[in-house]
Amino acid sequence: MERIYNFGAGPAALPEEVLEQARDEMLNWQGCGMSVMEMSHRGKDFMGIAAQVEADLRGLLGIPANYKVLFLQGGASSQFAMVPMNLLRGKKTVDIVNTGVWSQKAIDEAERYCTVNVAASSEDARFSYAPTQDKWRLSQDAAYVHYTPNETIGGVEFHWIPETGSVPLVADMSSNILSGPLDVSRFGLIYAGAQKNIGPAGLCIVIVREDLIGQTLPGTPTMFDYKIHADHDSMYNTPPTFSLYIAGLVFKWLKRLGGLAEMDKRNNAKAALLYGYLDSSGFYHCPVAKDSRSRMNVPFTLKDAALDEEFLKQSQSRGLAQLKGHRLLGGMRASIYNPMPLEGVQALVDFMREFEQKHG
Amino acid sequence: MERIYNFGAGPAALPEEVLEQARDEMLNWQGCGMSVMEMSHRGKDFMGIAAQVEADLRGLLGIPANYKVLFLQGGASSQFAMVPMNLLRGKKTVDIVNTGVWSQKAIDEAERYCTVNVAASSEDARFSYAPTQDKWRLSQDAAYVHYTPNETIGGVEFHWIPETGSVPLVADMSSNILSGPLDVSRFGLIYAGAQKNIGPAGLCIVIVREDLIGQTLPGTPTMFDYKIHADHDSMYNTPPTFSLYIAGLVFKWLKRLGGLAEMDKRNNAKAALLYGYLDSSGFYHCPVAKDSRSRMNVPFTLKDAALDEEFLKQSQSRGLAQLKGHRLLGGMRASIYNPMPLEGVQALVDFMREFEQKHG
Repeated sequence: MERIYNFGAGPAALPEEVLEQARDEMLNWQGCGMSVMEMSHRGKDFMGIAAQVEADLRGLLGIPANYKVLFLQGGASSQFAMVPMNLLRGKKTVDIVNTGVWSQKAIDEAERYCTVNVAASSEDARFSYAPTQDKWRLSQDAAYVHYTPNETIGGVEFHWIPETGSVPLVADMSSNILSGPLDVSRFGLIYAGAQKNIGPAGLCIVIVREDLIGQTLPGTPTMFDYKIHADHDSMYNTPPTFSLYIAGLVFKWLKRLGGLAEMDKRNNAKAALLYGYLDSSGFYHCPVAKDSRSRMNVPFTLKDAALDEEFLKQSQSRGLAQLKGHRLLGGMRASIYNPMPLEGVQALVDFMREFEQKHG
Repeated sequence: MERIYNFGAGPAALPEEVLEQARDEMLNWQGCGMSVMEMSHRGKDFMGIAAQVEADLRGLLGIPANYKVLFLQGGASSQFAMVPMNLLRGKKTVDIVNTGVWSQKAIDEAERYCTVNVAASSEDARFSYAPTQDKWRLSQDAAYVHYTPNETIGGVEFHWIPETGSVPLVADMSSNILSGPLDVSRFGLIYAGAQKNIGPAGLCIVIVREDLIGQTLPGTPTMFDYKIHADHDSMYNTPPTFSLYIAGLVFKWLKRLGGLAEMDKRNNAKAALLYGYLDSSGFYHCPVAKDSRSRMNVPFTLKDAALDEEFLKQSQSRGLAQLKGHRLLGGMRASIYNPMPLEGVQALVDFMREFEQKHG
């Protein structure tokens, strides 16, 4: 089988150009006689790669100089503990907005370290919308406010940035970082597992305002201390070098295409095509409120769940892969991150229309 | 430049066959239409890869059924905290043997969680030997005994396994795992960062006797709980999928060559060649006691440190790379892990002999 369109939620599709370059350089990076995987992280070649990765990410997102960019391991799941361990700074309470599975995980883990005030929740409607800020009940003395701008499983996205005044805003952007321009200065801390819109699994990026770090809870492991990583330019220990290199190739690809303004346009066009078709069809249904629909993860159901298996079988044979929905929601989910071209979404819509005509 | 001989201490050389296969499969793994990097970790293809990786590692090391094999992130540096956080089990003291930089790091981190008894130390001779067990002073009630079977920086290796009775023995085998056969049943826990003898940086392997896990310290992050990872077959969160895949290719390569008995022979032959030459020369000097010399990391100095720069320049131009010693020791270090062929060591010795004749 040739390359397929991969709608997986993560690890997810990567740009073909990135994979081709990684392939071509696999045994010998730019004539140095070794693979990037074989380089010392403290050698000149890899230090150059790492510096470029950070510079390109800073350029793409316009990250202000008073923010540190950390390249860590352990995924967003480690951040669920690292954030409170580092950002409580003597306070006892945090505000977290609950919009689904991933916010719930952030809540559960934070509760080991502090009192969590669930400032808002969309549980009343099966996590199918993003609560508007007039519904949020923030605490008097929260160390920070945490939310999940895009819920990968539920397909719910905030299309606005919450206003939290002087209280630092923390965001788990694992599944929508780099999908469009972002005003980083509105945030205290942003984290993102790489395996959706950045690169391979095993890398986690943290962008943090530097005045917020350096006051960890007692008992915090050294490797969970942002300040340690910041002071060592993410080289306190051996970083996941190859994953960093691939992320760097993705950043270069984004820059070549025109940066995040261009991705914004492309992601809007892809989402408009898919949601437009879903809404015009009486056969498929998207459970998410229109103002909260994710541009990255599009869950939908078929009129008759008995057809799910046939839908998955046929779509797979047409080179449309990994469309099965998360087990908690059932149905289907099409993840259409940056690397998914409009042609892939068009191919999906074409197939869905055919399938509807046959089975509707 | 063609492929060079890479003597780096880690990230280190990988077998060329492994890199070739990774290159060939980069865009399309076994006809599935995607890269391993793009696969869902919960999909059939990747689950198959992961199961094979574990089976091959279990086969190579003969890991008993009552040991869990965990594929984690965060390197040995995270293990320095995870080990006490999981293995104290109500006790207050641990015994750690100090043989250099890496044991010292294990000591410093463990001291955050318990009382550390330094059971033996070779600091009296600049960490140039492995203290024999008759010199160890073990505590009455230690939760475990920790040692570093191979010190990557000092080039000191234990060629015997300590006897600790019913007290679990914990070993940081980052730089000598898989270098020869091992009786895993002698250990309570073994950990190893992958980037030396296993695969790419960003993967850390833990082998732990299952009765030792499940009693973490209060405040332990979920991601630092061995039991969580064991109960989820290392898929509690997204694992570093591509690094696991590469490690699997390395394990297949080891099996094709004849397994760890064969690696043992090869590593003995390489070490004999290099140490034999060092000892016959009046120009080079290895500071490590003969009975404690590492088969993996060979530090040596030149008669005149003023020649270091010239040595590095000339060796690099001959395709002998990353020979610079660690900044703490100065001089040179040749790391000759499994992937380094005898021909590479021969090429190094030939060059060293020439250099000696010219400058000696």
